[in-house]
Amino acid sequence: MPAQALNLQQKLRLINDVWSPRVIAEMNDYQFKLVKVDGEFVWHDHPDTDETFIVLEGSLRIDFRDSHVMVNAGEMYVVAAGVEHRPSAAAEVSLLLIEPRGVVNTGASGGELTAEGDQWI
Amino acid sequence: MPAQALNLQQKLRLINDVWSPRVIAEMNDYQFKLVKVDGEFVWHDHPDTDETFIVLEGSLRIDFRDSHVMVNAGEMYVVAAGVEHRPSAAAEVSLLLIEPRGVVNTGASGGELTAEGDQWI
Repeated sequence: MPAQALNLQQKLRLINDVWSPRVIAEMNDYQFKLVKVDGEFVWHDHPDTDETFIVLEGSLRIDFRDSHVMVNAGEMYVVAAGVEHRPSAAAEVSLLLIEPRGVVNTGASGGELTAEGDQWI
Repeated sequence: MPAQALNLQQKLRLINDVWSPRVIAEMNDYQFKLVKVDGEFVWHDHPDTDETFIVLEGSLRIDFRDSHVMVNAGEMYVVAAGVEHRPSAAAEVSLLLIEPRGVVNTGASGGELTAEGDQWI
């Protein structure tokens, strides 16, 4: 089969829910995950790894315990390992997450928003 | 200083040359690099690591020894470790590269297009 690029918009159209990351590619032991988010996520951290957010559509807010950052379409932000954060979105946001294979979306916080890993589209 | 997102278009406006990747962020031991390309690069590979291309503007062609892939704006492609490839662009392309810190753009092929590493913008 000839090599083919991954079209992010085409892949996004396959996602009809929120807070449920879908893997679209791997680079070494890292995964690229598309996810739609809306509303407020849980406070959590990832003690062992940084986590990259690249916003494709909409405006993502990431709260930290003492500040926050807005990440708009065409912008990216790397949350450092161990930093407690809470993503939220006032309206639906589409984003590309990059993080090592095996990272759980809610960290050690758990709860009903915890998504199954390794869901490929 | 309050946390601030990285705006990819703003960063791209700081780049006035081609084939010279600029680091804009790090995630663990990986770097995010913006680069503008135009014309034909050299055949090379990276024996020890995959390399991710996310095209922001334009159409990137990546030749392999037995095929090729077109990566258009809004698309991404991961070149597997050890696979010989030659990026090229018929007109200027802006892209985001993701690869481990320390990767040399021309691999072991060297030549005049070899860029200095760790150039931050």
